[in-house]
This record gives sequence, C-alpha cells and structure tokens, in this order.
Amino acid sequence: MIETEIKPQESLQDRFDQIQTLLRQYNKEKQHAEENDLPLTASYTELQQKLDELHWADIADLLESLPLDDRLLVWQLVKSDRDGDILLEVSDAVRETLLADMDDHEIIAAAKDMDADELADLAPELSNDVLQELMSSLDTQQRERLQSALSYEEDQVGGLMDFEILSIRDDVSLETVLRYLRRFKEFPSHTDKIFVVNSEAILKGVLPIKQLLLNDPDLLVAEVMADDPVIFHPDEDAYGAAQAFERYDLISAPVVDNNGKLVGRLTIDEMVHLIREETETEMLNMAGLREEEDIFASVWRSVRNRWAWLAVNLVTAFIASRVIGLFDGTIEKLVALAALMPIVAGIGGNSGNQTITMIVRAMALDQITTANTFRLLGKEIGVSFINGIIWGSVIGIVAYYLYGSWSLGLVMMSAMTLNLLLAACMGVLIPMTMVKCGRDPALGSSVLITAMTDSGGFFIFLGLAYLFISFGIMPVTG
Amino acid sequence: MIETEIKPQESLQDRFDQIQTLLRQYNKEKQHAEENDLPLTASYTELQQKLDELHWADIADLLESLPLDDRLLVWQLVKSDRDGDILLEVSDAVRETLLADMDDHEIIAAAKDMDADELADLAPELSNDVLQELMSSLDTQQRERLQSALSYEEDQVGGLMDFEILSIRDDVSLETVLRYLRRFKEFPSHTDKIFVVNSEAILKGVLPIKQLLLNDPDLLVAEVMADDPVIFHPDEDAYGAAQAFERYDLISAPVVDNNGKLVGRLTIDEMVHLIREETETEMLNMAGLREEEDIFASVWRSVRNRWAWLAVNLVTAFIASRVIGLFDGTIEKLVALAALMPIVAGIGGNSGNQTITMIVRAMALDQITTANTFRLLGKEIGVSFINGIIWGSVIGIVAYYLYGSWSLGLVMMSAMTLNLLLAACMGVLIPMTMVKCGRDPALGSSVLITAMTDSGGFFIFLGLAYLFISFGIMPVTG
Repeated sequence: MIETEIKPQESLQDRFDQIQTLLRQYNKEKQHAEENDLPLTASYTELQQKLDELHWADIADLLESLPLDDRLLVWQLVKSDRDGDILLEVSDAVRETLLADMDDHEIIAAAKDMDADELADLAPELSNDVLQELMSSLDTQQRERLQSALSYEEDQVGGLMDFEILSIRDDVSLETVLRYLRRFKEFPSHTDKIFVVNSEAILKGVLPIKQLLLNDPDLLVAEVMADDPVIFHPDEDAYGAAQAFERYDLISAPVVDNNGKLVGRLTIDEMVHLIREETETEMLNMAGLREEEDIFASVWRSVRNRWAWLAVNLVTAFIASRVIGLFDGTIEKLVALAALMPIVAGIGGNSGNQTITMIVRAMALDQITTANTFRLLGKEIGVSFINGIIWGSVIGIVAYYLYGSWSLGLVMMSAMTLNLLLAACMGVLIPMTMVKCGRDPALGSSVLITAMTDSGGFFIFLGLAYLFISFGIMPVTG
Repeated sequence: MIETEIKPQESLQDRFDQIQTLLRQYNKEKQHAEENDLPLTASYTELQQKLDELHWADIADLLESLPLDDRLLVWQLVKSDRDGDILLEVSDAVRETLLADMDDHEIIAAAKDMDADELADLAPELSNDVLQELMSSLDTQQRERLQSALSYEEDQVGGLMDFEILSIRDDVSLETVLRYLRRFKEFPSHTDKIFVVNSEAILKGVLPIKQLLLNDPDLLVAEVMADDPVIFHPDEDAYGAAQAFERYDLISAPVVDNNGKLVGRLTIDEMVHLIREETETEMLNMAGLREEEDIFASVWRSVRNRWAWLAVNLVTAFIASRVIGLFDGTIEKLVALAALMPIVAGIGGNSGNQTITMIVRAMALDQITTANTFRLLGKEIGVSFINGIIWGSVIGIVAYYLYGSWSLGLVMMSAMTLNLLLAACMGVLIPMTMVKCGRDPALGSSVLITAMTDSGGFFIFLGLAYLFISFGIMPVTG
C-alpha cells in the first residue's frame, strides 16, 4: 500500500533542509577523508537513511532542486529499486542529467518493470541499443502497446493514455464482478470505474465503482452502468482532454478507437501534470524561454534555451533604434525628447503586456472566438483611451513643469494616448493572428508586443514633436 | 448518474458556435418582433433546447465566453435547477455579473441546496440579507460548518475542504462496511477512500475503496486500512496541499484538527482548480494585472484592475527618464546615443524577464532555497556574460558600421554586457528578496525588473559614453 510510505507533508521542507546540510557536511568530510586516507563516516550513513525515508516522489522533487554534483550524489544513494519511479517523475531536463550518469545496464534494470506507456515516456531519451534490448524483453502485447504509444505525439491523448484496463461484460451480476475483483492482487491506480465491453472489446459503458458498492449485488452490470460516458480518441488533443477532466470532474476515462474499441485509459494524475505544464509553458513562452529549464542546467544549455528570443529582440530593438535615428535632427533641436521618449515606449509596453497576457490566457481556456474579436478590441481600446488620457495628462503636466513647455506636455499626452491605443490593438490582434496562422499565441508574445510599442511609441512621440517643431508650435533648445 | 448527462467533448466548440449563431439570430428577430409586435419564434425555442442539452459545467464555460448582454440572456434561459451548480463553477468575476442579475429570491432558491463549503464560496458576494436568510434555513451542524469554512482564508486548507465525510470504525468487518455502504443512495463525489475514526472522531486511518474490493470480506477494517495516510490541517497553505495531491497522486484526503479529530476532506477537483488558478495568477501578476479579469468586464472595471501597476510603471519610467536627463549634455554632443540607448535597455529587459520568469516558476515549485542562491546567481551571471559578449559584439559591430566610430561600438558592447549582468543579478535577487520580505515573488516582478534594466541600462550606456567623450576617446558630432 503506497499510503503507508507517505509521511505528513508539513515537515518536507525541513527534511530537504536537513539533507542539504548533510550533503554539505558529507562533501567536507569526503575531502578531509580523501586527504587523510580515512573511511567515510556518519554523515554518509545518515544521508542514506534520510533518503530511504523519503517517498520516491519527494526524491524526484529533491533531485530537481539540487545542483548537478549534489544531484548525482543523491542519485547514487537512492535504492536502485526506486530508480524507475523517480525517473518517470522528474522533469525532462533533470531526467536527462540522471540518465547521462547511468550505464546501459543500470538503465535497463530501472526500466524493466515499467509499463508500455511509461517506457514510451522514457524512450526519446534512451540510446538505440538500450531501447532494442528493452523491446526484446517485452511480450507481444506490451511491444504492440509501446509501438502504439510511440506513434502518437506527447500532446495527443494516445501519447498519454495507459493500458491498465479493468474490463467486464454487461451481462454479469454485480456479485460476480465483486468476486472477480477479489481475485486481483492490486488494481490499476485511479480506478474509479470499470470499463464494460462486449466480446469484440467494443466499449458499451462504464461501471462506476460507487454503483458497484451502492447497488444490490444481484443486479446486472447492464442495469446500473452508465452507457454514455465521456470518451476520448487517441488522436485527440491532450490538453482538450485535460480541460474535459477538469470540467466534468473525472478521475479516469476510456480511450476508444474509431470503431469504438477500447484501446486505453486516461487518468487524472497525467491530466494534472499536463494542466500545470501547459500553463507553465505558456508563461515561459511569453517571456521568450524556449522550454522548461533545469534551474541548474549548464550555462551553455541555458544560453541556447534563451538566445533565439534574445536575437529576435535584438532585431526589434535595432528597428526601434532606426526609428529614433529618423528623428536625429529633431532630437538635436530639443534634447529633452531623448529623455522623455522611453516613458512613452515603456508605458505602452507595460499596458500591451497586460492586454496580451489576458488574451492569451483566455484563448487557452477557449473563452475567445473570432466572433467576439471586435467586442474585445472595442473594450481594450476603451480601457487604453481612459488610461492614456489620465496617465498621459499626469506625465504631460510633469513634463510641462520640468521643461517649462506646454506644447511638450501636449505632445507627451497625445503620444502616450496614441501608443496605449496601439498597444491595445496589437495586444488583441497579435495573438488572434497567431492563432489564425495556426501558431501558439503565447510564443514570444511579450517580445513582439514590446517591439511594437517601442518602435511605435518612438515614432508617434518623435513624429508629433517633429510636426510641432516644424510648425513652430514647440520652442527648441538647440 | 452524472455520466449520462455528458456528451462527447469533441463537438463542444461546434455547439458553442451554433449557440452563438442562434444568439445573433435571436437578437435580430427580437428587434424585428418588437418593432412589428410579433411573438418570438423558432430561434428562441431552439436556443432553449440547445442549452438544455449542455452539461452545467459547459454552460459555465459558455457564460464566461459571452459578452454581458448575451451572457445574461443565456443565464435567463438556463433551467433554474442548475443555477447553483453553474454559479459555483464560473469564475469570480463572471459570478458577480450573474448574481447582479438575480433578485434575492432567485439567489436563495439557487443556494438552498448547497453544502456548507459551497455556500462559503458564494458568501463573500452575497448581500447580508440573503446570507442571513440562508443561514437561518440551515441546521445547527451545517451552520457550524459554514462558520468554520468562513473563518479560513481561500488559500488555506480550511477554506477549500468539504464536509462530505464517509467514516467507519476499525473493528468491523469489510462485509459489514459493504452492507453499510449499500444503505446509501449516493456517495460523496471523489470517494476513493473511507475514513476510519474512533468514537471521538479521531482519525485512525483510511480504508481505500480498492482494499475493500480486493480483500476477503471477513477481514476487519483494522487489518487492511492504511494507518499512516497523508493528512492535512485546516490552517495549512492550500497550494502546498495541492502540490502534495499532485506529488502523491491523491484523489481525496482527510483534514484533521490539532487533536487529530477528522474535520473535513480535500478532493482532487478543488486541487486541480487551485493549481490552474495559482499558475494563472502568477502569470497575470507578473504582467501587472491585479486579478483574473472577466474578458468582457466593463471598461471601468478593467481600468481599475490595471492601473495600479501602470502607475508604478509610470514612476519607474519617469526615473529612467531622469537618468537620461543627467546626460543631456552628452546626448547633445552625440545624438546617435539617443538612438542606441534603447537597444541596451531593451535587451536587458528581455534577458531579465527570462531569468525572473524561470526563478519565480522554480520558487512556486519549491525548487529554490536560499542555500542555493549563490550557485544560481553564478550560473545566471555566466549565461548573461556569454550572451552579453556575443550579442554585444554583434550590435557593437553594427554600430561601428552605422556611425563609423569604433569607440561607439565598444561602448555599445560593454554597456550591453554590463546591463545583462545587472539583469541577471536582479532577476535572481528581486524574487529572493520579495520572498524574504514575505511577499509573493510573482507580483509585478516583470515591471520591477524592466525598471531596473531601463534605468540601469541608460545609466551604464550614457555613463560610459560620457567617460569616453570626456577623455577624448570618442569623437562628437555637435
């Protein structure tokens, strides 16, 4: 029973801290011991013991929060029979560092008890030799399942389903089902319903465990089963399935092929991971990070994860710079413009990021259809207009006091309002356009909107100043 | 059985689209009918019928994606017996608009069948009159539970737990438990375990339903129960509990007070909502939005949701502007500086946002302790240094070609590298400091880091240029 392994959650952080202290102590002792040719002592044993007391899911968490050298030390100390569970629990980036530290023999030992769907999760990071050897140790059914799982993408239902199916016929009594279940040693995790199939494995319905417990044992399965359950197909989008799990409060659900044949099962634990990862990825993508990063990844890896968007940003910043370059002459005439222009650009960027974050989030939740684009746009323009007038006036008055020029204040206020309107339009239209082009609206959206409001803000502000100066409305210093 | 109400998920978007088309049609017909004194026709009936076919959780979703007038029309058409479920499912912002459209009588009718924990969710948005009336209709136990639920914050376990407890003693046989369960009409949702208590309601363990099914009915509960389950306390942080649910793959878990007395129950559905909301709030907070916004909120509401951070941004932008103002004379001498300075600030902001997003995320997952601050700082500094040298050189060379001044190129490269280093330090230190001060590290972190890299970037770049010009290394145009 897994429950008995678990300790109360409150002391977890304390225990992590203790382990970190032990790690420091051990590292010191190790150095000392090596220098003086002494055997390793107390801290090693204590470390081992503390680790043995931890649930494997906690070890996975601990490994993620340790720098590489400590991480590998802990990994060596963890009992090998828990390797497999831990490998499946850690993030992709951390898993890679752990696998790199294992030889083929150890990897095969860790993976040999995995189910087909678990092996499929691990497969992309295994060498061909290891994968072949693992394949050959599987029976025909398991091998077929592995191949099926590998044939789907990670973001498809088929890539996330498992094969631990408990199924029954609909013409037996609940009593028979109860007797049948007692013959098992263990159930698949998250079994809240049993699948009801016919002799061709076509899904006829589901029998919720609670119906099995609530009803008279003499009733037939067909009399109490739900014959219209939520079902999924292997080629469906996994995130859509996760949203359905959340919406309908599901714990497990059947996956059927186009003929209605039961081929697998989805469970809430995979869906929770997916919901967290999806929102997380969205956040990272908006900030211009390519993927989830192991926080202790090597410097070089981190550089690669980040530089694509930095390069894009460099190009957009360069364009903004050229926009300013257009107005060299204007700035020379009134150098105060150089000091004020970043305010216009900055507020625009901030406001645009607020809008785009909200829109991207609402899109992920399917709250936005193209039908209501114009209403949204209208609302955002209204919000920007009010903010522009209010904050534009504030900063316009400040500019007037600082530089003693009412016309400069007016340029400030107008530019700010116009740039906020630009930010609102772009904040709505960028993600909408990206979705129409079949792209992820979160991807680099923050970098893109900032690019627009920078170049746009400089152009609007300096352009207005140029006009005011040309028409002699604004006095110049030069 | 809830399962029979649910339709396959794939057609949901289609059905939403159909309903939106019907809404447009109905709005047109209504106008026409009113003008010509005709009765309402087909589209109304069809709309009603389509809505009746939808699961209440889908209606909640639909309501969130409709503008206010359509939303209230749909709300009127929804059968009143589903009002309560829908109200509990929609987001806080949307719920407010729905409640505003109901009179006290309707609200009381919708809320009268709610459990104490559900009422507690609704309570903050109800008028005192309504709340009093609902309170008086409750029995003593329910009223005590409601008061208990209201005494905890939304982010505490006590604010999220429900009271649907199924409990048994440990000295009875599984057969007795099975017979006892059959006397119920319905189980609490998400019942994957039954709580085992003594006569003082002290929790002794849990009996997983699967143990009930797998084992010989003659065995005693005490023989098969798990006596060391994961437990929670009402005053614990709810997000920590959600992480424990995810880590240990829990479906339900007991909540006990300091004496070990069973007082409530947590279930995975609430935890999934919380995980999604928490990540979402983090994302919105980083962008400087105060709270989740109804995307069709009134303009005025949206303005209020956003302007606090805009005001902060205005102040920081003003500071950056004053930093530039310090170097008025330098810019006058070499106006190219005005065009180049936003590049340095912009790239710094982008890079800083990458770092801070990663750190904030890792903090939410408890992967970062103060113990590893310095290692992280070291890594981030390394990444920035490499990016600074590479991209700084690129832009330095571009600046050299554009303005024909190698010293300007050198200033560009150095300033970029230094600003990226600043961004790295601030990206690590800002969230660490906020946590040390007991604040949410996500809150406005993006605005803060941008402020640092803007002011810092301008100061570094213009300061270096000033030095180069003062020492006669850089030629001036003015």
